[in-house]
Amino acid sequence: MAILTQKIYQSIRNVVWEGNFVPLHSPFFGKTEEKYVVDCIRSNFVSSVGEYVDKFEKAIREYTKTKYTILTVNGTSALHICLLLTDVKKDDEVLVPSMTFVATPNAVWYIGAVPHFVDVNKESLGIDPFKLDEYLSKIAEVQENKCYNKKTHRQIKAIIPMHTFGHPVDMDELTSVAERYKLTIIEDAAEALGSLYKNKHVGNFSKMAILSFNGNKIITTGGGGAVLTNNEDLAKKVKHLTTTAKKPHPWEYVHDMVGYNYRMPALNASLGLAQIEKLDEFVEKKRILAEKYKESLKDVEEIEFFVEPGYARSNYWLNAIILNKEYTDARDEILEETNKNGIMTRPVWKLMHKLEMFKDCPRMDLSVSESLEKRIINIPSSAHLIKD
Amino acid sequence: MAILTQKIYQSIRNVVWEGNFVPLHSPFFGKTEEKYVVDCIRSNFVSSVGEYVDKFEKAIREYTKTKYTILTVNGTSALHICLLLTDVKKDDEVLVPSMTFVATPNAVWYIGAVPHFVDVNKESLGIDPFKLDEYLSKIAEVQENKCYNKKTHRQIKAIIPMHTFGHPVDMDELTSVAERYKLTIIEDAAEALGSLYKNKHVGNFSKMAILSFNGNKIITTGGGGAVLTNNEDLAKKVKHLTTTAKKPHPWEYVHDMVGYNYRMPALNASLGLAQIEKLDEFVEKKRILAEKYKESLKDVEEIEFFVEPGYARSNYWLNAIILNKEYTDARDEILEETNKNGIMTRPVWKLMHKLEMFKDCPRMDLSVSESLEKRIINIPSSAHLIKD
Repeated sequence: MAILTQKIYQSIRNVVWEGNFVPLHSPFFGKTEEKYVVDCIRSNFVSSVGEYVDKFEKAIREYTKTKYTILTVNGTSALHICLLLTDVKKDDEVLVPSMTFVATPNAVWYIGAVPHFVDVNKESLGIDPFKLDEYLSKIAEVQENKCYNKKTHRQIKAIIPMHTFGHPVDMDELTSVAERYKLTIIEDAAEALGSLYKNKHVGNFSKMAILSFNGNKIITTGGGGAVLTNNEDLAKKVKHLTTTAKKPHPWEYVHDMVGYNYRMPALNASLGLAQIEKLDEFVEKKRILAEKYKESLKDVEEIEFFVEPGYARSNYWLNAIILNKEYTDARDEILEETNKNGIMTRPVWKLMHKLEMFKDCPRMDLSVSESLEKRIINIPSSAHLIKD
Repeated sequence: MAILTQKIYQSIRNVVWEGNFVPLHSPFFGKTEEKYVVDCIRSNFVSSVGEYVDKFEKAIREYTKTKYTILTVNGTSALHICLLLTDVKKDDEVLVPSMTFVATPNAVWYIGAVPHFVDVNKESLGIDPFKLDEYLSKIAEVQENKCYNKKTHRQIKAIIPMHTFGHPVDMDELTSVAERYKLTIIEDAAEALGSLYKNKHVGNFSKMAILSFNGNKIITTGGGGAVLTNNEDLAKKVKHLTTTAKKPHPWEYVHDMVGYNYRMPALNASLGLAQIEKLDEFVEKKRILAEKYKESLKDVEEIEFFVEPGYARSNYWLNAIILNKEYTDARDEILEETNKNGIMTRPVWKLMHKLEMFKDCPRMDLSVSESLEKRIINIPSSAHLIKD
């Protein structure tokens, strides 16, 4: 093990509990989870209707302070529905960060629309509103309240800021750009449940936002997601589209449009309800974990431990270290050795514009993403990782 | 209540347990369901990997005697994946019954392909292979092993027989038509887990088949589905496409195509495993229920109780009565009164070619479907409905 790897490995080991294998992120369940899930089974309502669906939706509304929540089978399906309801159509363009999980551009592609990749900044690891503004001033033009890409002649309809590792994008600045260019914002808050932007929960800064409750997220329903919105009309449409577009009737089966089977089963919602009751505790513990990492890693001069932007109170879903530029070459050895020695680490996702299926999509200069891709290493981040 | 309604109502009441409200179909859970689900939570693996996913997949393989099973979030997503792997593309046509649940044509539409509606027969309530053969001889032509619609000039790529209410389509006859016209068969066995065609479980008569474990099905996972296939290469592709097309690697995130987030969480699989252990019992009880209905309704001359085709051993997922043609007008009153008096009944789905979004799709003469639509009434069918 090289010296730098040793220093990083030991600094992590100083923070987390001993064990043969420390996963990157694992859930924590207690008795309440078992109780609610068993109660759900005994109620006989384990499927798409059932009081646990209503209860978990209500709990999310109350936690995030958004007016409407509609549960879905996962974050990808939630994003797909948001795009459909933003009137994104075949051959429209949607601005998405290149540094994101593949679900973000996939949802755009499902509609036949084109992901247009934009760069991130070092402060949030999410979309850089200033760089975006400058870029759009060159390549976009607004005509009759619509934004067109001057090069491709396609309409640019929406932008999806993804709150990377739980750290909010600078939404005020992004909103100002989006308003100028007539772009609808859809927040991809898959990783950011529990994170605040300027003291307000993420998901409140766009027409619609999405959450994920996948097994690796801060709380989990096994698999699941949600659409958040403050618009009643949109909320109704989301519910309709995610439930096969069936018209309400006690026995008739009439569907008035092509809908989707994107409902979260009550079984999963019952697990989610128990989990969201622990969310404040998880956020607190994850923030303490981040503090401890920061302290433990402060003498490792070759790296920077990523801390939340000044405007945010993040859930620190996944902790990240960023190698200084001179130490880029060390990344793979650090990944190899930490994983080999029981500390699970991983690089950031391969950038979207480098994936085979997206390589010909339009994109701006992505130099910050390209640089960060070579330097980010995620380190174990479960809420219950702190020693003693 | 009209006399006919009274006779039907009383004949149903003679069979099912007393109660304020008898649902159309409700699941039955016991201690094993609670045990497995709690065990799944305690294992900490509730998401897309976990031993319960493997165990439930194995149990389905063993029950259906298909070589490969891949769990999905629901039957709709399973069908979508099957169509993608049949190389169905935008503007291709896919033959589907007009009398089916909306998921069947929806999955075709998701790809941009065109559902082409075909008629059913009275023997199975599924696709009529003889009428189809005659129709294709007029409108289709085969060139270089491809089938074209002579009217629309589009390629007809596949056919989706749906085993209505659990009763298998005549697969030998359908296979012979499909072979002649170079059509790939995908069995929509969403309703037919536990049903045999000529002593062999459905799902074994096509390249790929799908199951559903929705809350109303013979066994449930809350929400869920599966792809069945006997082809190893296809099985691998299904797994890849349903798990975001991520290339296997201990930490790298590289996706080699646009994939889907269609994985069934382990939490749902654990419920499914407990359920499939009861499947033989459920099939047995549902067959006894059907026998009792048949007996109880035998003197109601205005209707026919639907019985399985001679070649089949059906799961009798949903029991159905069919009004004689002269009594078509009585349907709505029977539905109104039985539902009002605590016996849940429903008509068959509104025919697909009558739904707004599919009304311009190509179709053959659908006179049998049209006639049956006015005459079918589904009656309570849960496995545990029998009196005493």
